[in-house]
Amino acid sequence: MKIEDLLIVDPVDGEYTGSVKIGKGKIVDIRRYHCTPKAILMPGFVDVHTHGQYGIDTMSAKAENFEEWAKRNFEQGVTTFLPTTVSASFEDILKVEDALAKLPSSIAGLHLEGPFISKEKKGAQNPEHIISVTNGFEQILRYPVKIITAAPEIDGFNRLVGICRKKGIVVSIGHSMATYSVLRRAFEMGIDRITHFPNALSTLHHRELGVTGSGLYLDFNLEIIADGIHSVPEFVDFVYRVKGADRLMLVTDSISATGLENGIYELGGLKLELKGKRAELVESRSLAGSTLLFNDAVKNFRKFTNCSLKELSKVSSYNSLLSLGITGLGRIKEGYTANLALLNEDLTVLKTIFKGEEVYNK
Amino acid sequence: MKIEDLLIVDPVDGEYTGSVKIGKGKIVDIRRYHCTPKAILMPGFVDVHTHGQYGIDTMSAKAENFEEWAKRNFEQGVTTFLPTTVSASFEDILKVEDALAKLPSSIAGLHLEGPFISKEKKGAQNPEHIISVTNGFEQILRYPVKIITAAPEIDGFNRLVGICRKKGIVVSIGHSMATYSVLRRAFEMGIDRITHFPNALSTLHHRELGVTGSGLYLDFNLEIIADGIHSVPEFVDFVYRVKGADRLMLVTDSISATGLENGIYELGGLKLELKGKRAELVESRSLAGSTLLFNDAVKNFRKFTNCSLKELSKVSSYNSLLSLGITGLGRIKEGYTANLALLNEDLTVLKTIFKGEEVYNK
Repeated sequence: MKIEDLLIVDPVDGEYTGSVKIGKGKIVDIRRYHCTPKAILMPGFVDVHTHGQYGIDTMSAKAENFEEWAKRNFEQGVTTFLPTTVSASFEDILKVEDALAKLPSSIAGLHLEGPFISKEKKGAQNPEHIISVTNGFEQILRYPVKIITAAPEIDGFNRLVGICRKKGIVVSIGHSMATYSVLRRAFEMGIDRITHFPNALSTLHHRELGVTGSGLYLDFNLEIIADGIHSVPEFVDFVYRVKGADRLMLVTDSISATGLENGIYELGGLKLELKGKRAELVESRSLAGSTLLFNDAVKNFRKFTNCSLKELSKVSSYNSLLSLGITGLGRIKEGYTANLALLNEDLTVLKTIFKGEEVYNK
Repeated sequence: MKIEDLLIVDPVDGEYTGSVKIGKGKIVDIRRYHCTPKAILMPGFVDVHTHGQYGIDTMSAKAENFEEWAKRNFEQGVTTFLPTTVSASFEDILKVEDALAKLPSSIAGLHLEGPFISKEKKGAQNPEHIISVTNGFEQILRYPVKIITAAPEIDGFNRLVGICRKKGIVVSIGHSMATYSVLRRAFEMGIDRITHFPNALSTLHHRELGVTGSGLYLDFNLEIIADGIHSVPEFVDFVYRVKGADRLMLVTDSISATGLENGIYELGGLKLELKGKRAELVESRSLAGSTLLFNDAVKNFRKFTNCSLKELSKVSSYNSLLSLGITGLGRIKEGYTANLALLNEDLTVLKTIFKGEEVYNK
């Protein structure tokens, strides 16, 4: 396959026009030449935090649902993603891990969001299942878990980090009331990412930075939900200006009701109401995850920040892969896997290529 | 007068070694040469927000007290300052203006902090005297007023800005609960500074930036009290990293009890308790201004941020002068007024030179 007359966007080499030739699932040749590009070619998008969409929910999905989800995500240009759990019993979390035993190839693993988080910052998580690091916690830390979101102030956090390090699981700080000194210690231990910043995190104060202030001040990588609801556009732009494009990772945090009609749905045993693009818990009126589709996250971030396309390829793909330690993906460069999103000038996904095969055509 | 073997620090030209010759109150010649400097020479410091020190209070000071205050400030390297009022009746504010009719030459004018501010963010101001922009407000906006701190959300703010603009008075946003949209409008009207950031301002939230978030996000110049009490050191460093040294202005916000012993004092008719370096209102336990001396503000800022000396000369002098539109001061350059602070390597003021005369020698 050869695609001609492209605006090629690489997170390292930047933007240039030319053609890309694909063979045996990889990018085999890139030619640079002057042309009026017919489309934008970016590395396929990566969503490391998503609970579901179109009625599929990580917590109840069967193997075939994950397959279906992967296909749905191709429509969004997403070629790598991590289904994400909510706080639940070990038994229920183990069931999800079993259901994902045979990973569809665009699923890079599982993101456990909880249960070792702060009850005070539960967000839309069911407090019944929120616990500290108790005996037997290791059993849920097995294949295919890639990320676990935990609060650094909970009892046993250091033990959790020790086990995760041995197993190659990335610890991400989230749902946390931690102070600056706790965050600083965690950062110095090598924990370098924060989940859906700044949602469900202690706020910035000038006499206690909290997780929000520490995330901005220290060199953390931040997941961000660019729906304009979880944070207003000017906050997203502010974070972009403070942190720069190298430290941000777009995520959807989408729930199973994403893409469905308004109504009452369920999230981790709690009732939620979907109204327009807003999902709230019925009882507390807390935001209950997003209904964001990844292609919209990409468009929004560009609109909110006026970032370059090169930067957009970092926040939509490259940085998340780096954070997971995944190599060989996320660049448009000879030898890299041909996971690609072809976009029009409005950044709408026209085609998605996965391992060199066209898997979506608008 | 000629001073040899200096580390000369200029906010524009940066740091270099050499000598400075002074004649008729001005810097007349600068020689650059390699040497081991015996002292650091910086532009004299500027404190645009100070309520008093050593028992002197702007609100009750007589002409001779202002003279004494100016002398005391030379000990701190301060060669330009603005005594600052608190919210009070027009009558009392007019009395202060009268007492300052003949300005001691290191006083560049008066800073009115209030009375057109937010009662919700009164800080240590007496709420009895906090008002919106009422009939007759113009009468207090006369010589020698240079700055007025006001809340942009109060009724009549636009009228206030209009009058101030005509009279050459700088409007500074402070003691405010304003939202991002109000701040943005103010910024677009040309208001570009914020008083003692982020104290007595609405806090940052990701769905409403408030004055704190807007001050960081938009291109405002920020006064900052670097005592480690009004904001923790890491917050000061965070603000420095976000805004850069060009947008920060050190102020003391010092009260009359500054430099005095622990005890009960008064501030704008309210009782305050001084304990160590902390001054609190007795009733509410709000911070009641600082007990910071300017030389300590300079040392603290350097310690908190590890900024360069060039940057330190910006935040301690140059930026505040720019913000007031004062030219011919604040640089070490031929033709500039010789207002200078000579410091040792710990940044302790050894000598102060004012209009070419040595006015302090440690």
